[in-house]
Amino acid sequence: MSAAKFDVLTIGNAIVDVIAKVEDAFVQQEQLVKGSMNLIDEERAEHLYAVMGPAIEISGGSAGNTAAGVASFGGRAAYFGKVRADQLGEIYRHDMRAQGVAFDTPAATNGPATARSFILVTPDGERTMNTYLGACVNLNVADVDKAVVEASQVTYMEGYLWDKPEAKEAFRLAAKIAKAAGRLTSITLSDSFCVERHRDSFLDLIKGSIDIVFANESEIKSLYKTQNFDGAVQAVAQDCPMAVLTRSEKGSLIVRGAERIDVKAHPVRQVVDVTGAGDLYAAGFLFGHTRGLPLATCASLGSAAAAEIISHTGARPEINLGQHAKALGLI
Amino acid sequence: MSAAKFDVLTIGNAIVDVIAKVEDAFVQQEQLVKGSMNLIDEERAEHLYAVMGPAIEISGGSAGNTAAGVASFGGRAAYFGKVRADQLGEIYRHDMRAQGVAFDTPAATNGPATARSFILVTPDGERTMNTYLGACVNLNVADVDKAVVEASQVTYMEGYLWDKPEAKEAFRLAAKIAKAAGRLTSITLSDSFCVERHRDSFLDLIKGSIDIVFANESEIKSLYKTQNFDGAVQAVAQDCPMAVLTRSEKGSLIVRGAERIDVKAHPVRQVVDVTGAGDLYAAGFLFGHTRGLPLATCASLGSAAAAEIISHTGARPEINLGQHAKALGLI
Repeated sequence: MSAAKFDVLTIGNAIVDVIAKVEDAFVQQEQLVKGSMNLIDEERAEHLYAVMGPAIEISGGSAGNTAAGVASFGGRAAYFGKVRADQLGEIYRHDMRAQGVAFDTPAATNGPATARSFILVTPDGERTMNTYLGACVNLNVADVDKAVVEASQVTYMEGYLWDKPEAKEAFRLAAKIAKAAGRLTSITLSDSFCVERHRDSFLDLIKGSIDIVFANESEIKSLYKTQNFDGAVQAVAQDCPMAVLTRSEKGSLIVRGAERIDVKAHPVRQVVDVTGAGDLYAAGFLFGHTRGLPLATCASLGSAAAAEIISHTGARPEINLGQHAKALGLI
Repeated sequence: MSAAKFDVLTIGNAIVDVIAKVEDAFVQQEQLVKGSMNLIDEERAEHLYAVMGPAIEISGGSAGNTAAGVASFGGRAAYFGKVRADQLGEIYRHDMRAQGVAFDTPAATNGPATARSFILVTPDGERTMNTYLGACVNLNVADVDKAVVEASQVTYMEGYLWDKPEAKEAFRLAAKIAKAAGRLTSITLSDSFCVERHRDSFLDLIKGSIDIVFANESEIKSLYKTQNFDGAVQAVAQDCPMAVLTRSEKGSLIVRGAERIDVKAHPVRQVVDVTGAGDLYAAGFLFGHTRGLPLATCASLGSAAAAEIISHTGARPEINLGQHAKALGLI
C-alpha cells in the first residue's frame, strides 16, 4: 500500500442548499414534517420555491459538507459528486475547491440541473429539507476514479446515494476498490427514513465491507428495528468493526467490539440551524482518526465541528476548524 | 393624479452578491482598496472567483436592496432591473417576489449572464465590492414601464446606473415620466467614485428633476468638490428640495431648504458586514416618507433598517422590518 494522497474521500449528492427562515406554520401549511428530508420532483420544487420566502444559497450535500469540514481542519480531502455544467454547478465546484477539496468529477453536460435542497429553517433551528436531486441522478460507476479511492485513507459515503440505482452501484464499486487497496471504508446512514427505504441492503453492506458506520440515534434504531438504543448498540457491535453514534446534546458514543467510548457534546450558545451537524461531526471524527488520534479526541473534534456548524445558517464551516481545534487544545 | 399603486419604485443594477469572508491580506494581495466598489470585466471576475474562498450567494444590488427593505417594512414596492434568463436570474427574481416586490422587467434571453458582485468582507465588517455588471448592461428605455412609474409615489434610482449609457437613458426617462405624473423622484449617489465619474451630469439631474437625494458624507463632499461637510450641505440645500445625508455612526442629517434635522444612528451590537447600510437606510426613510411620517421618524426608520442589515452577512433584511419598527415604537 503506497502512502495516501488523501486523508478522506467522500462521495455523495452534490447539492446547493437554498435556505429560508420560516415559521412553523409554513412547514405545516406545506404538509411537511418538521426535521424531515423529502425527495421532491421538479414540479414540487417549483411550487415550493414559488411559495417560500427570500433565500440564500450555500453549497451543501451531506458528504460534500463532510469533505469541506475535513479540509477546514487541515486534512487532505477529495470528493466525488455530480453537478451539471450550469451556474449552480460552477458555484458548487468553486466552493469545494476554494475550501481545498479535490473535486474533479466531470459535470454533466445535459440532463437535469444541479441539485437543490430547499431548506426551511424554523425559529427553533430545526431544518426541514426538500431535495430535488437533479444532476445527482447521473453519478455512476464511471465517476469512481480508482486512483483517488486507492490513494485515500478512508472512503466515506452517504446513505442518500442509495436512493438512485446508478449512484448505489458507484458506491459499491468505490467500497470494493477501497477494500482491495487495504483502505478503510465508511458510511453514514444519513436519515432514518433513508434507512427504512434501504434497511436490508444497508445491513448487507455494513456486515460485509464497511469499517466505520456513522449514525444518529434514530438511524441506528431504525436499522435494527428497535426502540431500544442499547439493543441497537449491541447489534451494530456485532456487525461492524466500529460504529460512531451521535446523540445530539447527549453527546456521542463510539462502539468498537466490546469497547464503548462516551463523549460529551460540545456546548453551543445558540442553535441557529442544525443542518450539517452530523456531516461536520463525521468530518471532525475522520480527520482525527486519519491523524491516528485517540477515539475520544476524534469524537471531541466531531462535536466541536458540529457545534460550530449549528451556530450559524448553512452547513459549511464559517471558521477555520483546524485553528479552532488548536484553540480548544484538541490537536 | 390617481391613487398610487406603489409606494416606492426602485431602479438599479440587478446583482447577485457572492460573499466571502477574507483577511485584510487578501484584499491587499489582490491590490484592492478596502471599502471600494470596483467594476470588473469577465476575465477579472474569473480570476477573483478562482482565488477567493468559499462563498454564499444572496440577492443584492443597491436599489434592489432598497426595494426589498421597503417591502419588508410593509410598503408597496416595485423594481426595474435586468437579469438574464439563467439560474442566478431566477434566484434574483424569486428573492424579490418572495419579499413582496413587484418585479416584472423581462429577463435578457441572450448576452452576458446575470450580474455578480464578489464581495470580500474583512474581519472589521468592511466590504470591498467587485462587480461584474453582466446582463445589467441590457437595461434600457424599453424596460421603463410607464404605468408603474406613474403609479409609484416615489421613483428611486441608484447612481450606479450612470455607468452604462443605456441604463442612464432609462433612468432619465423614468425621472421624466415620474415628474410628468406629479410623483416624487429620488436618487442615491451610490459611491464617491461613481460621483467622480459622473459629477456634472449628477449635478444637472439633481438641480433639474430630483426631489430627494440620498448621499453619504464622502459622496456629497465629492459632488461639490469640497472637504467641508457643511459646505456641501449648504450647496445641496440650494440645488435640491431635500437631501438625506448619512454619516455612519454619526447618524444622519436631513436638509430641506433652511431646515436641518439631525438624527442619531441606531445602536449596533456588532458590525458583521456593512454591505447595504445605505440601501436599507433609504428603504426606511422612503417607507416613512410615503406614509407621511415626520422626517425625524423617517430617518429613525432608516437608521433602524441600516443597523439590522449590518448586523449580519448580506444586504437583505433577515427580519420583518415592519414588526421591528413597531417594536421600536417608530410606527
